[in-house]
Parts: sequence; structure tokens; C-alpha cells
Amino acid sequence: MTLTVTSTPLLDTISSPADLRQLRPDQLEQVARELRQDLLGQVSRTGGHLSSNLGTVELSIALHYVYNTPQDRLVWDVGHQTYPHKMLTGRRSRMPTLRQLGGLSGFPRRDESEFDAFGTAHSSTSISAALGMAMAARIKGESRRAVAIIGDGALTGGMAFEALNHAGDTHANLLVILNDNDMSISPPVGALNKYLARLMSGGFYSAAREGAKSVLKHTPLYELARRFEEHAKGMVVPGTIFEEFGFNYVGPIDGHDLDALIPTLQNLRERSGPQFLHIITRKGKGYDLAEADPIAYHGPGKFDPAVGLQPAKAGAQTFTQVFGQWLCDMAAADERLVGITPAMREGSGMVEFERRFPQRYADVGIAEQHAVTYAAGLACEGLKPVLAIYSTFLQRGYDQVIHDVAIQNLPVMFALDRAGLVGADGATHAGNYDIAYLRCVPNLAVLVPADENECRQLLSTAFAHNGPAAVRYPRGSGAGVAVLPGLATLPWGRAERRRKRTSTSTSTSTSTHSSRADEALGLSVAVLAFGPLLYAALEAAEGVDASVWNMRFAKPLDVEAVRQAALEHDLIVTVEEGAVAGGAGSAVAEALSQLGLTRPLLHLGLPDQFIEHGERGALLSACGLDAAGIQSAISDFIRRATLAAASKTSRETSA
Amino acid sequence: MTLTVTSTPLLDTISSPADLRQLRPDQLEQVARELRQDLLGQVSRTGGHLSSNLGTVELSIALHYVYNTPQDRLVWDVGHQTYPHKMLTGRRSRMPTLRQLGGLSGFPRRDESEFDAFGTAHSSTSISAALGMAMAARIKGESRRAVAIIGDGALTGGMAFEALNHAGDTHANLLVILNDNDMSISPPVGALNKYLARLMSGGFYSAAREGAKSVLKHTPLYELARRFEEHAKGMVVPGTIFEEFGFNYVGPIDGHDLDALIPTLQNLRERSGPQFLHIITRKGKGYDLAEADPIAYHGPGKFDPAVGLQPAKAGAQTFTQVFGQWLCDMAAADERLVGITPAMREGSGMVEFERRFPQRYADVGIAEQHAVTYAAGLACEGLKPVLAIYSTFLQRGYDQVIHDVAIQNLPVMFALDRAGLVGADGATHAGNYDIAYLRCVPNLAVLVPADENECRQLLSTAFAHNGPAAVRYPRGSGAGVAVLPGLATLPWGRAERRRKRTSTSTSTSTSTHSSRADEALGLSVAVLAFGPLLYAALEAAEGVDASVWNMRFAKPLDVEAVRQAALEHDLIVTVEEGAVAGGAGSAVAEALSQLGLTRPLLHLGLPDQFIEHGERGALLSACGLDAAGIQSAISDFIRRATLAAASKTSRETSA
Repeated sequence: MTLTVTSTPLLDTISSPADLRQLRPDQLEQVARELRQDLLGQVSRTGGHLSSNLGTVELSIALHYVYNTPQDRLVWDVGHQTYPHKMLTGRRSRMPTLRQLGGLSGFPRRDESEFDAFGTAHSSTSISAALGMAMAARIKGESRRAVAIIGDGALTGGMAFEALNHAGDTHANLLVILNDNDMSISPPVGALNKYLARLMSGGFYSAAREGAKSVLKHTPLYELARRFEEHAKGMVVPGTIFEEFGFNYVGPIDGHDLDALIPTLQNLRERSGPQFLHIITRKGKGYDLAEADPIAYHGPGKFDPAVGLQPAKAGAQTFTQVFGQWLCDMAAADERLVGITPAMREGSGMVEFERRFPQRYADVGIAEQHAVTYAAGLACEGLKPVLAIYSTFLQRGYDQVIHDVAIQNLPVMFALDRAGLVGADGATHAGNYDIAYLRCVPNLAVLVPADENECRQLLSTAFAHNGPAAVRYPRGSGAGVAVLPGLATLPWGRAERRRKRTSTSTSTSTSTHSSRADEALGLSVAVLAFGPLLYAALEAAEGVDASVWNMRFAKPLDVEAVRQAALEHDLIVTVEEGAVAGGAGSAVAEALSQLGLTRPLLHLGLPDQFIEHGERGALLSACGLDAAGIQSAISDFIRRATLAAASKTSRETSA
Repeated sequence: MTLTVTSTPLLDTISSPADLRQLRPDQLEQVARELRQDLLGQVSRTGGHLSSNLGTVELSIALHYVYNTPQDRLVWDVGHQTYPHKMLTGRRSRMPTLRQLGGLSGFPRRDESEFDAFGTAHSSTSISAALGMAMAARIKGESRRAVAIIGDGALTGGMAFEALNHAGDTHANLLVILNDNDMSISPPVGALNKYLARLMSGGFYSAAREGAKSVLKHTPLYELARRFEEHAKGMVVPGTIFEEFGFNYVGPIDGHDLDALIPTLQNLRERSGPQFLHIITRKGKGYDLAEADPIAYHGPGKFDPAVGLQPAKAGAQTFTQVFGQWLCDMAAADERLVGITPAMREGSGMVEFERRFPQRYADVGIAEQHAVTYAAGLACEGLKPVLAIYSTFLQRGYDQVIHDVAIQNLPVMFALDRAGLVGADGATHAGNYDIAYLRCVPNLAVLVPADENECRQLLSTAFAHNGPAAVRYPRGSGAGVAVLPGLATLPWGRAERRRKRTSTSTSTSTSTHSSRADEALGLSVAVLAFGPLLYAALEAAEGVDASVWNMRFAKPLDVEAVRQAALEHDLIVTVEEGAVAGGAGSAVAEALSQLGLTRPLLHLGLPDQFIEHGERGALLSACGLDAAGIQSAISDFIRRATLAAASKTSRETSA
């Protein structure tokens, strides 16, 4: 271990950046040592993001030392590297609550601190937001500064370029800091990364350029060079691409060297117009184990810093693992399969696939829009692309799903991980909307496996389908159903009945618009479950003697199953881990309308509000989506319906 | 007029690119003259895109002459510049059907021709798609080539950069042609455009670079320069940003000079790895009037080429005009208002706003993702951004709507033009999904004005709301309701009843779960209309004596209005110009469930399929969304419900 500081005397005096700014510059290195030590201790006790935060200790100190926060605005891209920033802005004592229900968020949040100028979590938004703030200051005649801090991985996201393109054409007092650590969550890819590596290998680049000019200045060729420069700007003395985009480029400088960072920032803070500072940092800086394996220490659970991460005990198989294994097996069986990830190789379970099928693997960078259309291009040529992407990140490629995949009815398959509540990452990462935003798109199928084995089966089913299809599955593990080998498919668009109501008083109404007011008591219930909540629904059904269907498809919906459920039962309940608004339950409502069947319908799913971070199971319970909550909701529903029917019968009898 | 060719002897011999390839190079200029002349005649007779197509005549000829189409793949970004391509690939005789129901699409379509390798219409997709094709060829061991042709405007879209970043890191046999005409639909903006202008002003840039090298070669400084180059690659002989992205850059060359284009393409076709060709063309080339005003001739209606466009007769006021006027009036009244467009100043009705309020206007380029988050940044500082954007293009910024605006509950207003069917542009531009994809997002309001005057009122209402809100309105004009001045708001989340059922037999059931089986005949209907179809619904309601509500809000839904409609009527009908799946009708179904009210519900809206191009009114009729269609659907619905009720009553009587 390189960290030997055990007390934090200076850090203890800092309850806000104003305190920090009271210190002498020569004291800041000690602050950095204490902060780094404290950070490691905190994260090792709670789990959370580590490598990225160890990399931003000095930058956080320097920014708050030089800039007049919170009047000046800091926008941290992605934001999982803001723990040092949080600890310097009055939240150090709350670090033990990190990412827990009611505790500190793992990301910046405007409602958590005035120092969090902008909430982030998805990549590549910071330049846009900071530019908005800088332009607002301009419009309002305020002198505040705005700073975006963005990693080299996030810079590959297209919207970062959109923002650079806009910003470089303004006179906004915007500073973009490229925190270049040669690493997003997965290893770096793409041409831009190689370009940045060339800049880095140039050493003190700006200095060298000036040097080149001065060397040339006293030779006859200087005049020639100057004339060339006039004819073709930037030709002899080249600009970095950031200068070509209209920024004043400074760097690269060592992002762990406070003696370089602070004067550079002081200088930049006084300059007007768009500025670009390129700093080099190291993920995991100061903790040997994390420096050696920044991916492993990207987002560890709790661990002993003196020992480091221990091999994880084999836990329950996750849906991600089921996908990863299926992908390899299907790739071995079908050479048309191509696997694509937008910079989430580890999170999506594609490490083994890349190892075994490197020619058919593509990490396209943080580039969801491109990922979707790239897949469409592959599909045009007869290949079968599988895009593994978190539900929340497919929102980034939504237009491409409609315009490039669905309209052309191309067989692109989306493996939607982290569908539903995600737990500690909170509202920004919620995969709550996919059923609603996908099922309105013609041609596109949405498959919702209920357990691990069915996940494999429905992945095979979607892959075999000659059209666009998304298979959505949640974070973590499910019911623990053993996954059978083989690549067999399930019937397209067909649900399965998993439980039949046992009561002999089951009604078998065949009328089309009846709520069976003639049966005042003993109303029968059919539960239509979409996805892993099937198991909670089955448990709940025992208590209320309901029939249960495992729907398997949110689209195409098994309309015959809906018809059967409606004809054989008085009440219908839909259950899904997704937004009720426009979700699978609404699909059932629409189907009933189409069928001309009218039944009381109860939609169980996620409410119309953003769900905060916390443990996933606890959050589901809070939403009433565990077995007890489902049973209780169904019981209430039956009670209300029974009362209504009884009241009607009584009125009719007395009439 | 510069076009004097009146016959097309050479063009008449070309029914496919194979015919073109039989010609001698020195005959191609005549083909270009004939093609340009024919194109102008065709477009002037049908309307359609003109300026961009006059600019791609030589490029289309050169590409089909050099490349082995359709085995080699051409992907045209945006695709509205593909008329010459269509005319050279066997579709010249169908040009009179352009953009009409059943006729040629105004965009490339895979199902229209094997020469249309990829369907396009939205901007910036071509490099991704062509890269997919090139990588597929690599994976399959095929030698085919893939070419993306992209304009300088489209290049500002972030996904184009995402694709460049990926492509430059591959060895794909991909050619990207930058068709640089200094113009998207609106005038060019952004740093990239200025950069391209610098490249252009450098004249024969590549040649000059080679010249610079050879000048230096025989001097002592060459060695110095060479060593610098080794130390900091690209430093002494700079790369264009495209070279920095890993492409071999060639250009700029004159895109109307076949003698330059053809040998350059022949050379590039033989090179492996990613290639980038920068050509300069002129929108409107060869037709003086269009060259002088390429924006006016971007997408004209029918006109006489000998006379040119005539001032349009003042027609009905469009919703776009209502928005433009409102924007100026509100900006005059509230200095916090900031107007933003992603490169659609003309289409969104913001020309006057920019003229009057240039400091509060921003055209951010074709950059929908950035546009949304930029607006969020402005809103953080107390400004009130209004983002004017077509419904179909907001799909590009969907994640940003959720992640940057809605989660932070920022008062960003979206003026969603072209909501619903768009007519001649077809499925790619359809604004059919916005209600579904927006109403599942917490915090976000969706307002649906029914006519011009209400559009102004609801724009004011959304602007006054202290949270995110979208106001959706269709292409063209509406019922023609005179727009009153003033900036008054309407009650938040409240519908208005527009028609009351006149029949005295109106039921007033108060039961909660009854379909009123006791009233076998005379079932009463309530129509809940969302948006301009209100007027067709009102007309239909006369025929079936239905009550009608103008809902005004898809979200927050006026639940009290839904309750009243349900309690006072037997049947509910929802009407909207949007996808039924997850749309406003589904919101009503969810509300009824919440209320514990069960009523037969008929969802009228757009079906679950992509609607092709054609005249908007005709398409609405085909979807059953004119007054006659709505009335007929309601009548059928009443008939079915009545029969069902009668059959039930009869069964109960006989029981």
C-alpha cells in the first residue's frame, strides 16, 4: 500500500471550499493525501466508485481552490468521480450513507448541494450543460464562470462533439477540462483515443509548438512558413482538433501535480472565450491495487483496503451472465452473429465473447446512436447483430431504433440489461421506460423473460426472429431457475398459463361487456405477469386464488391469452417492473378494447415518479411490487370490485 | 436561365448504372446537363427537394460510373438529394409520382430499389450504416465497397462523429464523401463549418501540403521538421481533423468537375482502409434562381422554371406561424425567454424571432441531443428556454429529455412541431410516437392544443409552468380558429367540455363497475379528443349524439373529466393523432382503472404500422381519422356494445 496517512488534520478543517481557499498553496498536497486516504477508507466501507475518484483528488482540490464555487459552476461529466468534490463541499460526514436509501447519491444532484451545478450520470452531457450556463451568464451580464470536466471516454459520445461544435462558435466563458485517463469503464477504443495518445506522447505539446515557431523564426524558411500559414491556416503550425473547433487548447499537463494545475487554472479563469485544458490523470491513483487494475476497482463492493478485492464467491447467476453465456453459445452455432457494445463490455457480460470471437465483437465507444445504426448496417448485409445495452442507455439511440431499424424492419436484436429498477445508481439509470417507448414503435418486438432459463430461451427466440426485437431483463439475479443448455426457441408471441384458479366457483362468463354484476361475491382474478415479477405474482396468487399467466411478450401481445383471461375471470391484474404509463398493462387495456371485452383492470407497476437510489429489493417493496404488495393490492381490488358489484345488485334488487 | 438543353438523348439510353458505364468519360458532361435539365422539369411539376439535388448531379453520375452499384453500397445521408441517383437507377419514369401516395419516396428506401442500400431521412446516419456494411464485407470476406455521402450540415450531428471515431480505428474499406455546400436547411452554424471554410479557402489543400514537403525537403530544416514530426505526429505537416480521426483525407475538390471527380474516385476505390473525400458543391447548381436563394428552393412546391417561385398567396395560418408569432410576443414580454433550434430556423418559424432577438436565439446545428441539455443548462440559471423541434427529431434527444430535463424538473419547454402525420415526407418523419414516449416520463407535461388559438394559449400555459412541458401541434393549418392576441394561460391540467349529449335518455349511472347491461338500447357515448382531431370528433358527434371533451392535456390528464365522462356515459371513445399504443387513449384507460370505473373504451388513433408518404388529409382519412371515419367507428362501437348488452339482457331474462 502506498497510503500511509492515518489522520486527517487539515481535511478536518474543511467544511466548505471557502475553508479550502484559506489554506496556503503549499498545504494542498497534504490535503490531497488526507483526502485520498479518507476516500479509500470511505469507499471500502460502503462500496461505490473508486478508481475514478482516486484520479480526481487533485483536480477537485484545484478547482475549488481557484474557482469561486458555487458562484462559478462545475459540471462533472458522468459524475461518478465526484466523491472528492462531495467531500470538499460539506458532505464528508454523510459519506457512510453513500448510494443507500435516503443517503448521498453516487452522482451530483442539484437537490443535494448548491455545489452540484448539474445532475449527471449518463455520459457526455457536461459540455452542453456548462455551455448553457456560460451563455446564460452572458445573456444576464454575469461574470460567473462555467467549467465542464469530461473524461476521454465520455468525449467519444456524439453529444460532446455537438456541444464542442456549438461552443467553439460562441464567445462563452467556458472551460472544458479533458480528464484524460485513457479509460472509460471498458478499455479505451476509437480513433479519438489514439489521437489523444499521440498528443500525450508529444509531451509538453504547447511548449513544443512555441519552440518550433521560435526555432523557425530566425531562418529564411520562417517567411515561407508564415506565408503558407496565411494561405492555408493551421498548416505549418497545426492546431489540435480542439483548436480547430474554436477552443484555446492548453496541455497536456499532469493532473496530479497541484503546482501545475493551480497556476494553469488561475490563468485560464482570467481568459475569455472557450478554453480547453487537457490533463492527464491515472485512475486508481495512489492505491497500488487500483492503479494496477482500474477496471476491477471501478465500482467495487465493500473490501479491506489492506488486502484488496477478494475473488467473489460464486453467487446466484445473474441475467447478465446468462446473456454472456448465451451469446457465446449462439455465436458458436451461428456465424452470422455479431456482438456490439457501446463501451460496456464488462457490465454487459461480453468479456468471454470478445475473447472467443474477436472478429465478431465491436466496442464502438460511448456511442449509442452510432451503435444502433451500425447494427442496422450489418443487418442489411445478412449478419445478425446483437446490441447489448442497458435499458437506460438505449434511450440515447431511440431515434435510430425507430428510423434505422424498425422502419426498415431489420433483424437487429437488443439485449436490454438493467431493465426496471437498478438500485444504487438511482433514477438516472432506471430502466423503467423501455416497454412504453418501444412498444409504440411498429415492427419492434419486446420480450420479457420471467427467469434465467426463460431469458436464454427468449434470447434464442428473438435471435431467430427475422425482424427487430428487444429482450429486457433486470439487474442482478432472478428466481434462480437453472438454465438449460441448448438454443431452442419458444413460440412467438405466446404466453403460458402458470396457475389456474382452483376455486370451483370460477365464473366462465362469455358475455363481452359484463362485469358479472350478477355474482356479487367471489369475483375471480387473472394475473398477467410480464417479466421476473411473475414469481412474486405466483406467490401472491396463492393467497387470493388467482389464475396467472406468464406473458413472455409485451409485444406482440398474446391477445388470445388476454381473451381467455378475460372470459374466464371477472378481474384482470397486470404486473410489470416498468412504468405503468404506456407499459405492458396498457397494452392489455388496448387489447381488451380491441376485443370488445370490458373488465375491471388493475395495473401494477412503477409509479409516475422518479425512484431514488437504494437497494433494489427494498425499492421494489416500496413500490408494492413484492409478493406481499401484489397480494395486498389484488385483495383491495377484489374488495372494491365486490363492494361495487354488491351495491349494484342491491340497488337492482330494491328497484 | 442557364439551362438550355431541351432534349435528353443520352439520358434516354440510361435505364440503369450499367448503361451509364457503357459511355465514354467525355460523354458524361452531357449526361449531367441532360440530367440537370430533366430534374428541374420534374421537380417543378411535382414539387419536392430541388437545391440539394441540383448539387449532386455530377456526384451521382461519377459514383455510379466508378462504383459497381448495386454490389458496392451507396448510403446517402438525409437522402433528399437522391433524385439524380433515382433517375440513374431505373426510376426516372416514376418521377412524376414523387412523394405522392403510392409513388416514389422523396428519400432512399430499401424496398424501392436494390440501389438504395439504406433508407435515410434523418440526418447523420450514413457513416454508421456504411461502416456496418463495410465491416460486414470484411467479416464475410467480400470485396464490396461502401460509400457514405454526407453534407457539411449533417456532419455536425453527434452520431456522425461517433461513427468517424469508430471507423477511423478499423481497417474497413469505407469511403466517406463530405459533400460540402456550406448549407444545411438553415444557414450554416458552428465551429466545424468555420473549419471547413478554412480548408476550402486553402484551395488545393492536399497538393499544397505535398508542395510544402517538397519545398522543405532540400533544406537543412527538413531534417528538423522530420524529427519534430516523429516526436509529435502531425505537428509540422498538420493533419486535417479527419486525418486525426484515422482517415486518409483527400480534397477539397470541385464536386461539379467530372474530370476531377472520376479519377479521384477511381483512385480511392482501389485504396483500403477508411478514406475521406472532401468535395465542394453548390446547392442549386445550374439553375440561377436556386443558386441565388438555395433556401427558397430547398423544397419548393410546383413552379414554372422559366419564371421561378412566385410569392405565396396568403393561405391559412399554420401552427408553425402561430408558434413563431407567439415566440416573438412572449420574448417581448419576458426577457428570460431564450429560443433554440437544431438547424430548423425556417421550418420552425423562428426567422422573425432571430431577427428581433438575436441575443436570445441559438441555432445549435443538427444536434438534438446537445440542444436539449443546452436548454437544461440555461434553465438552471433562471432562463426560460423554448426548444422548437419537430416531434420526430425530439426522438434524437429522448435520453436528454429524461435525464437532463425531467429528472431535474427544469422548466424547459418543447414546442413540438409536425406532431402526427406529416404527409409527403412519410414514415421517417412521422410525429406519431411523442405522446407515448413522453407521457411515461415523470414530471413532464404534454399539451395538445386543438386549434390555432388554443395553440397560442397552451404555449403560454406551458411557458408559465415551472417544470418541463411539451406542446405538440401538427404540420400545416388546423380548424382556422382566429388567434387572439394576449398571453393569457389556460387552467393547468384541465379539459373543457365542448358538446353535451342532447338525448333525454342519457344515463346517469353512478355505479363503478357497471356496463349498464340493464339498458339494452340507447347507449350513450363520450368522446375525449386530444388535439386538432377535436373538430372532426365534434362533427362526428353530431351524427351519433355524443358528448365531447377537448382534453387539452395528454399529461397531466384531467382525471375529473374522465370520471365525469364515465359516470354520465356508457361508452368512452378517445381520439388522437398519434400511436394508439401507449398514447393518450391509454392514459384514459389507466385513469379509469385508477378510478375503479369500468367502461367499454374505443381507442381511435394511428395504427401500429408505419404510414407511408402521401397527402396528409388523405392519410388521416385512410386511418379513419376524419369526421366520417370517426362517426362510423363510433356507430360500429355502439352497435357492438348494444348487441352485447341486449344478448346479455336476453340471457338474463331467459335464465
